[in-house]
Amino acid sequence: MAAYSPRDFRALAFHQAARAFAEDADTPRDFLERCLETIAAQEPVVRAWVVLNQAGAREAADASTARWKAGRPLSPIDGMPIGIKDLLETRDMPTQMGCRAYRGNFPKRDNAAVSALREAGAIILGKTVTTELGGAHPGPTTNPFDQGRTPGGSSSGSAAAVAARMVPAAIGTQVGGSIIRPASYCGNFALKPTQGGINRGERQATSMSTSGVHAGSIEDMWQVAIEIAKRAGGDPGRPGLFGPSTPPEARRPAVIGVMETEGWAGLDAASKVAFEQVVDRLRAQGVTVLRRGDHPLLETFEASLTGVQAMTSAITGWENHWLFRNLVAQDPDGISARSKAVLTMASKMTPEDYRLRLLQREEIRARHAALAPVVDALIAPASPGPAPLWAGEVPGQPLVPRPTGDAVFNTPSSGIGAPAVTVPLTSVGGMPMGIQVMVQPHMDAQATAIARWMVETLDPVVA
Amino acid sequence: MAAYSPRDFRALAFHQAARAFAEDADTPRDFLERCLETIAAQEPVVRAWVVLNQAGAREAADASTARWKAGRPLSPIDGMPIGIKDLLETRDMPTQMGCRAYRGNFPKRDNAAVSALREAGAIILGKTVTTELGGAHPGPTTNPFDQGRTPGGSSSGSAAAVAARMVPAAIGTQVGGSIIRPASYCGNFALKPTQGGINRGERQATSMSTSGVHAGSIEDMWQVAIEIAKRAGGDPGRPGLFGPSTPPEARRPAVIGVMETEGWAGLDAASKVAFEQVVDRLRAQGVTVLRRGDHPLLETFEASLTGVQAMTSAITGWENHWLFRNLVAQDPDGISARSKAVLTMASKMTPEDYRLRLLQREEIRARHAALAPVVDALIAPASPGPAPLWAGEVPGQPLVPRPTGDAVFNTPSSGIGAPAVTVPLTSVGGMPMGIQVMVQPHMDAQATAIARWMVETLDPVVA
Repeated sequence: MAAYSPRDFRALAFHQAARAFAEDADTPRDFLERCLETIAAQEPVVRAWVVLNQAGAREAADASTARWKAGRPLSPIDGMPIGIKDLLETRDMPTQMGCRAYRGNFPKRDNAAVSALREAGAIILGKTVTTELGGAHPGPTTNPFDQGRTPGGSSSGSAAAVAARMVPAAIGTQVGGSIIRPASYCGNFALKPTQGGINRGERQATSMSTSGVHAGSIEDMWQVAIEIAKRAGGDPGRPGLFGPSTPPEARRPAVIGVMETEGWAGLDAASKVAFEQVVDRLRAQGVTVLRRGDHPLLETFEASLTGVQAMTSAITGWENHWLFRNLVAQDPDGISARSKAVLTMASKMTPEDYRLRLLQREEIRARHAALAPVVDALIAPASPGPAPLWAGEVPGQPLVPRPTGDAVFNTPSSGIGAPAVTVPLTSVGGMPMGIQVMVQPHMDAQATAIARWMVETLDPVVA
Repeated sequence: MAAYSPRDFRALAFHQAARAFAEDADTPRDFLERCLETIAAQEPVVRAWVVLNQAGAREAADASTARWKAGRPLSPIDGMPIGIKDLLETRDMPTQMGCRAYRGNFPKRDNAAVSALREAGAIILGKTVTTELGGAHPGPTTNPFDQGRTPGGSSSGSAAAVAARMVPAAIGTQVGGSIIRPASYCGNFALKPTQGGINRGERQATSMSTSGVHAGSIEDMWQVAIEIAKRAGGDPGRPGLFGPSTPPEARRPAVIGVMETEGWAGLDAASKVAFEQVVDRLRAQGVTVLRRGDHPLLETFEASLTGVQAMTSAITGWENHWLFRNLVAQDPDGISARSKAVLTMASKMTPEDYRLRLLQREEIRARHAALAPVVDALIAPASPGPAPLWAGEVPGQPLVPRPTGDAVFNTPSSGIGAPAVTVPLTSVGGMPMGIQVMVQPHMDAQATAIARWMVETLDPVVA
């Protein structure tokens, strides 16, 4: 495949097709058939899907076609084919979580978000590949722009399916960097909402996980998220996603802060150049850009991010350890050596260790909250450069710690529970690298509006 | 069975037996056999259990016996036979939730608390009857002190099994009043911890549910709770149960407030007399007792409790509605008419309705928090009198709205997420009625210490 450039790449956009449905110039069934053709052509290499429900999808597309023809679509996403990360339950397909222990698992229930999507008329086309249980152990998916590279994880299949134009949108989940990072590597738009913004349904076991949306356009990204939230709300006890019923209008920010995180020092030179060009273009548009040395509250916030990766691992490892232990009890080979290493780490923790990590997280949240009057948003690279090469395990060698890439730029928003949107605004060496926009909790629409302004206003950067 | 009196009733106490195990005067296997004999004698009428794992229990008891003989018990509850409410998963028994849709459901996993209990050496003896999905639709359990009365719900079997001396302790869960109310009707001690104090494992779908402990003694109640929390911690993102590794010492409170709730006006005369006698006995011990008119902050708190029952129903109904919808989609008869009524109510709600209910809950929490410097604890009847009569549905008649009793005195602590302990301190007409002690969140040990002082100091009331 040719090198990726954010100037030329055109992802699949459902909202444009929906206009044609309304004018009877296209139909959901035809849209689906085009998706299926793309999948047939690309899937042998990309391997984004665990399972497809083609018959069910065609039936749903015909029903949607009839609704559009009658002028009564259920929502703006009626007829949209969508991929569901294989951590979330679907009543018509198995849910196997990229994990041996869940092979053949078929609970015949819909996750809350899946249920809401069906109510909105969306077509649940298939289950997309996840790393094992959303962790570090990779699935078979390759990066659609270079099959020698990872698509990122854990929402590997969702990111790749959107990048390969197989679907206009797919559902992902993020604990550390599992939506924003693969979206960055695959040139997607993506929204990782405020923690709890989209009802996780049966997936409530970890305190940092969030369900979100990968899409080919910012309009579809928002529309999918808000259609889910309208119907299924947020997590229990949370107010759910706030924002308008249609994609927020572009909004120019006055002040942007750059968030460096622990990852800045390790960012390669070309990616740094690309990111700095985005900063220059923001300034050229009259946006004030603050760097960490420019404001004491920004510097104090950055200081609190030291160790945030370890904090994320400890919190999530502890929260998962009873589940992992169950899986090992059922079958000693039920989970991979990578997941077993998480279990070993967590088994050494006590409730007091966990409490201390929660306090650390509260401190980061407080320091981020203090930035509300200082910046309209923070930006950062959405990943430490473009997707790394990944050729699979080397027998006899130690396990590569992060075969689907490093979440270092993503764990702050995950820990804080703040919304993040990534936009495909740069390429580095012919591969995508996203720019991440992060705002205060519950201001998801503001992050989307600023991201939209950036992508509509700034020249993309090819580095 | 003879009339119940809190003066005479002696429940099963494991902590006393454990002393005998240490001295080789008794063994966990013998203790278990005595429990099984009681079950054999009582179960045909009480019907507390859905399923028993007698073979597994005997094996576990023998292993525990060997550990005690070797002087190496895993914990103070090593060898304790315990019942698990049938909402929680157990790897060796089905989990059927009192619900047709879950008949035969056997996920072969342990809930986090169950896993922790096994690690502590406790014997997972069986699954106790729950109302359907923890709601209003009753199971077959009868009250051990009068088979014509309900044991309460939703933790019906756990409360009844402890009351019938079948086990020294059992795990329950509470959303509205599902631990404290049946414990009151059955003369149990019970702890409904701070929300999130005990890891709910896979049961995270509602924001007010809490796992807790029914027991025959306050010592066993605390010990079971803390052994779980030590190993499985609290819910994701919560600090978990705080408190000592052994039962808190009795502590005399200086100031107690009486919480009337919406339920006070409907409390029958005999139950009011019983409760007022407890108040008199507290005063006789030099405790200052404040009534709602005595302090403006107490009055303001009470005022916020108007409508708390409706709030609980709305919040929990909304949180459950995607799950209920799934069950109906699988099988139109998968849930009862009572549960379908909840679904109908929730289907009319919007995310904004839910947000308003969360705000209402926050206001009640704030008004309760304001009482921290005013009272050491609040007390209230643990139920609106003794267990009501329940003879089953009458064909052709409208459904009785609350066949397992009314949670009106319990929903405040559930909504606030504050810990509550009930003590079997009174009887009314030959049936138990508990007195509930409620304190600030995370002060579970204080509630237990005050409850212990009350039961060790105050003469029980027979009204």
